[in-house]
Amino acid sequence: MSSNSFGKLFAVTTFGESHGPAIGCVIDGCPPGLPLAEHEFAHDLERRATGRTRHTSQRHEEDRVEILSGVHEGLTTGTPIALLVRNTDARSKDYAEILDRFRPGHADYTYLRKYGHRDPRGGGRSSARETTMRVAAAVVAKKWLAERHGIVVRGYLANLGPLAPRSFDWAAVEENPFFWPDAAMVPELETFMDALRKSGDSVGARVNVEATNAPPGLGEPIYGKLDAELASALMGINAVKGVEIGDGFAAVAQKGTEHRDEMSPEGFLSNHAGGILGGISTGQAIRCSIALKPTSSIRLPGRSVNLAGEAVEVVTKGRHDPCVGIRATPIAEAMVALVLIDHVLRHRAQCGDVAASGPLIPGSVPE
Amino acid sequence: MSSNSFGKLFAVTTFGESHGPAIGCVIDGCPPGLPLAEHEFAHDLERRATGRTRHTSQRHEEDRVEILSGVHEGLTTGTPIALLVRNTDARSKDYAEILDRFRPGHADYTYLRKYGHRDPRGGGRSSARETTMRVAAAVVAKKWLAERHGIVVRGYLANLGPLAPRSFDWAAVEENPFFWPDAAMVPELETFMDALRKSGDSVGARVNVEATNAPPGLGEPIYGKLDAELASALMGINAVKGVEIGDGFAAVAQKGTEHRDEMSPEGFLSNHAGGILGGISTGQAIRCSIALKPTSSIRLPGRSVNLAGEAVEVVTKGRHDPCVGIRATPIAEAMVALVLIDHVLRHRAQCGDVAASGPLIPGSVPE
Amino acid sequence: MSSNSFGKLFAVTTFGESHGPAIGCVIDGCPPGLPLAEHEFAHDLERRATGRTRHTSQRHEEDRVEILSGVHEGLTTGTPIALLVRNTDARSKDYAEILDRFRPGHADYTYLRKYGHRDPRGGGRSSARETTMRVAAAVVAKKWLAERHGIVVRGYLANLGPLAPRSFDWAAVEENPFFWPDAAMVPELETFMDALRKSGDSVGARVNVEATNAPPGLGEPIYGKLDAELASALMGINAVKGVEIGDGFAAVAQKGTEHRDEMSPEGFLSNHAGGILGGISTGQAIRCSIALKPTSSIRLPGRSVNLAGEAVEVVTKGRHDPCVGIRATPIAEAMVALVLIDHVLRHRAQCGDVAASGPLIPGSVPE
Amino acid sequence: MSSNSFGKLFAVTTFGESHGPAIGCVIDGCPPGLPLAEHEFAHDLERRATGRTRHTSQRHEEDRVEILSGVHEGLTTGTPIALLVRNTDARSKDYAEILDRFRPGHADYTYLRKYGHRDPRGGGRSSARETTMRVAAAVVAKKWLAERHGIVVRGYLANLGPLAPRSFDWAAVEENPFFWPDAAMVPELETFMDALRKSGDSVGARVNVEATNAPPGLGEPIYGKLDAELASALMGINAVKGVEIGDGFAAVAQKGTEHRDEMSPEGFLSNHAGGILGGISTGQAIRCSIALKPTSSIRLPGRSVNLAGEAVEVVTKGRHDPCVGIRATPIAEAMVALVLIDHVLRHRAQCGDVAASGPLIPGSVPE
Repeated sequence: MSSNSFGKLFAVTTFGESHGPAIGCVIDGCPPGLPLAEHEFAHDLERRATGRTRHTSQRHEEDRVEILSGVHEGLTTGTPIALLVRNTDARSKDYAEILDRFRPGHADYTYLRKYGHRDPRGGGRSSARETTMRVAAAVVAKKWLAERHGIVVRGYLANLGPLAPRSFDWAAVEENPFFWPDAAMVPELETFMDALRKSGDSVGARVNVEATNAPPGLGEPIYGKLDAELASALMGINAVKGVEIGDGFAAVAQKGTEHRDEMSPEGFLSNHAGGILGGISTGQAIRCSIALKPTSSIRLPGRSVNLAGEAVEVVTKGRHDPCVGIRATPIAEAMVALVLIDHVLRHRAQCGDVAASGPLIPGSVPE
Repeated sequence: MSSNSFGKLFAVTTFGESHGPAIGCVIDGCPPGLPLAEHEFAHDLERRATGRTRHTSQRHEEDRVEILSGVHEGLTTGTPIALLVRNTDARSKDYAEILDRFRPGHADYTYLRKYGHRDPRGGGRSSARETTMRVAAAVVAKKWLAERHGIVVRGYLANLGPLAPRSFDWAAVEENPFFWPDAAMVPELETFMDALRKSGDSVGARVNVEATNAPPGLGEPIYGKLDAELASALMGINAVKGVEIGDGFAAVAQKGTEHRDEMSPEGFLSNHAGGILGGISTGQAIRCSIALKPTSSIRLPGRSVNLAGEAVEVVTKGRHDPCVGIRATPIAEAMVALVLIDHVLRHRAQCGDVAASGPLIPGSVPE
Repeated sequence: MSSNSFGKLFAVTTFGESHGPAIGCVIDGCPPGLPLAEHEFAHDLERRATGRTRHTSQRHEEDRVEILSGVHEGLTTGTPIALLVRNTDARSKDYAEILDRFRPGHADYTYLRKYGHRDPRGGGRSSARETTMRVAAAVVAKKWLAERHGIVVRGYLANLGPLAPRSFDWAAVEENPFFWPDAAMVPELETFMDALRKSGDSVGARVNVEATNAPPGLGEPIYGKLDAELASALMGINAVKGVEIGDGFAAVAQKGTEHRDEMSPEGFLSNHAGGILGGISTGQAIRCSIALKPTSSIRLPGRSVNLAGEAVEVVTKGRHDPCVGIRATPIAEAMVALVLIDHVLRHRAQCGDVAASGPLIPGSVPE
Repeated sequence: MSSNSFGKLFAVTTFGESHGPAIGCVIDGCPPGLPLAEHEFAHDLERRATGRTRHTSQRHEEDRVEILSGVHEGLTTGTPIALLVRNTDARSKDYAEILDRFRPGHADYTYLRKYGHRDPRGGGRSSARETTMRVAAAVVAKKWLAERHGIVVRGYLANLGPLAPRSFDWAAVEENPFFWPDAAMVPELETFMDALRKSGDSVGARVNVEATNAPPGLGEPIYGKLDAELASALMGINAVKGVEIGDGFAAVAQKGTEHRDEMSPEGFLSNHAGGILGGISTGQAIRCSIALKPTSSIRLPGRSVNLAGEAVEVVTKGRHDPCVGIRATPIAEAMVALVLIDHVLRHRAQCGDVAASGPLIPGSVPE
């Protein structure tokens, strides 16, 4: 299996190219009895979609999900749930000019070296278009996690290039197209993005994700640690170059007395670990953070090589995001949700008859 | 499978607790015909071992590897290679005092909640002792990668708490107990560690790993990306809280024109990507970096909870590293090597008959 | 993953219910560069389809395959190949009467006990309709095996209830709707089937499959033996109750001198083993045989239980095959082909650089 | 992973060669909290061992199991359980004469072609010696299945070459070295075996296994059907050439009215299906049967080829079983138990929160 499946027990297999007839996925292992309807996918796909504001790619993806199997009379049956989204606004002519040359920072060169043959239209399989199906699959995961365990996964943009929020409010996040937690800064972000788009360049970003109400005990030592699987899930998102759990790289300069999360009968006294110890959830909020590189598809010319091995210049036309990080928030949430549901199922497979022992330390961190 | 196996085709299953009779591993899928002898494990296990200098734990692990299977007349046969290391210096009495309470920053609490029952001696399965077998398995992987493909994996300590190298020389790295690339700073590090040990506290660290000569084409989109699997492999090392590929978190504030690695017929003109594009190796050096948290086992008392749920104080005695990052260099190298050999095999499974197409861009980066 | 995927490296994930909007599959791991077009699926799907003669179910499945991804400019790209077949002749009203009762010999009861909820229309996921996608996926496998290795997989009906062929000719097999190797007996089979259909009852069958030109070396000891994986693949076909490799159950009464296949420089002197020794192919023809039970969906009333737990009578209407074994020939071939391509890829992953040692004994068996 | 692991959630990885220093296994995924001690392995290993009667190989395997990990204070901890058995009576000199030639019916030729290099001592990895660890791992599985679910797995010899039992009594099975259910026939079997041994030849056998008290709902459609996984598990035992579930090949000639198991509120009225419908257990006894070929290691000379490709004669000395089927009974039980525990865990992973719906039909079959 050439790794187009994700998850061990709640397994999602995706398929499709950016400019092919359709993209889709098959969810195998979903617990039966979950109510599920096609309209439930709209909200998260809308959050991820391009073409919603002038700050993201102007490709207008309609993204209507068709449920092909696995649901009967409105309930999941336990059999594979196939989801299909037809590609509706694929303009392959935009890509004609780059067929014979490799775009810097793209997978053009590596796909060709690996496979000897590639679909160049819109990046083919390496396009962020593929992440649509991660978000769709995670709609199912999020719903089950919320209904059965009260687990909530949510994210926000923590850096837009050099900019950082000056205040934090979860309520603000869904009220602006940037998933930005500081409402007062939104005009500043819009000005920044307008200038960036005009310049033809792009910037990187940071996205933070938090999962609350996950019970203690999720995660499998040694090679299926919850943090290791989150790292894989998040690093596998297009353009991600770094992953942190809890304090992440800040831990390098910390002292042990500073980093270790002390406990009291009332709860953990801090959460530097990001809710995971020894690869297993503690019951605290699970916190992770990712770095996204600046979009490689930019209008400014770059040096490259063509199929004949000659030096050429590349200019990427087409419709691209000047900051891919903006739309990455729902994608990062999706990957976290997919890891969590998989581990809930894995945990109950092995430990479903364990009478948990020892006290339950509340996860709440005084803030 | 409760995730004690690592790798899809070159698969390593490890077992053993810190203070049990033995630790070991089974390597399944090793190509046949590789010369292998027990003495070849000594060098890397010595690099990883405790008790070698006053700056790491004083537990003296002898770590003699016995090959139980899979090698006949000095060559691997293609059948499972079982490696066994008996535990020789396990002083479980050191742990008697912490049996009834959870050490902050440790897996004590999470293992108990997950399994309802745990082996507390020396941290049991969650001990860094387990990483011995990762290093042992990687001795086989490194040898095959070097002999068949000329691939070399090596690492160094890039931060020791607040300290950073002021100059860089690969030759220095193996000449000091810190894997530090700046020989002139070694006395400074020794002074720092002596003071730290005296204070009873600990610090974090950063380790960088580089793999050179990996051919282009390694890595599987979408969920088996080379960077995603490196992230999982590295985040799964005890105490790791962050992983970066190439520029990592620095990419957040970069512009597209700055980050994208341009190409010329003579080679890539930079390596911000860390040798991976679209999840597939470019042929450049693969570069990754990890953050390790400060050791949680420290002498300074911390607040915690006991099995009865009461507030208690914890002091960790035993023999511990004041900076676990120091010994993490060979472990991080090991995980990178294990990921690479797995992907070399995976690549030839699917693409073994592909006539690679397009020019081969040299991986060398002018520095 | 709830086991709707088959294969380790050439992995096929299927989805879809008998009377849902569509069935389909995703092939992950297909080598790139294989020419593939939609029309190539027609032949094998036609061989498997119902409604072609009066001797199989009268449901007329159109079975037009749409390639949704993984093929560009007529060549496989190495990315997932998604195949979709819309369900066109699903008459769910036929099943209304059996909604509240369990059909004897069917999965009605077991699905309901397992999942608590099921799609009863046409058997839902447990319908033989699902095997359409096995055949479709195997079209790709068969083509690659033939083009790259000259491997040919073909099967025939070896028993139709009590009937057995009196002569054998491969050329006859594709010339009659029964895949029967004895052309002279076809009228006898037609008479038998007409009487059976009239009686309302059904019969079992035996199908034999042979793969020629498979090289020696395919198969992985200990738990991925070629014969073990063939057994799983074949037993997993609907209605199969027994699997034999080579002489199969006849070996029980054989002597060692009789069963062991002696060798000479000119080749093996017999093939009792069915081309597999120690779980690994010998280079001889691989031979297997399966037993299919009589169709459970019959018009003759049977005793059963309804959802309320009361005794009831069941009569299955709808359109059913009086002998499911007839259409099982292409399905059994498909499963054998899927196992073989998977093992060709697995073999070259581990042993791709082995210089095979020792003499090559021709596989031909003097007959 | 070169398939030396078995099971998806209760996963057993075995290693070791017949004449290497040791054989062993790692059980990953065992539920925590199961009492387990080294002496518990003795009974089943004794049942499987050679050297117990004159009717099996005279190699005297001591087979003392050492638990290396995964058990603390007498209870499984949920971490990997490693079991080690040192090889004590390996006489490799017996094999010197067959180093340069291929024994007919053995894996000598196929291993060499696959790996280019092999361990010929005692058959190396392909020896039935490996099955020791299957039996050991299944001791854990059987205990858990019995304690948590009351599931009992037991087998018997159903044919010894041409001989078949004339009466049936489970109580007789463990009272004779043949696992034969008809006590009165034991002298006849002894006479048969003595004559066979004297002749230098060998015979095949049939073993039947039954699992009772398995709940309905075990097994995963489509490719992880309970019968498909049993088929793989059983066909993967050395020398097995055929597998049947329920009526097996007898179903070929049956009518639908004869085969289908009707139901009443008091229970199923027959068990032709062997306790599995649609790949899922019905709650009835699960019944399977295997054919074992006659031992290939016989004293009577056979034609073969040597490493130089020349025609030679082979005579197998060493200590061998004239009927490998005799000792296969505990091995077949072991494989069935390993499949069942894996499916119990898989079922509760996906369906652990299903409120089973519909009536529970008793599994008892009036006999």
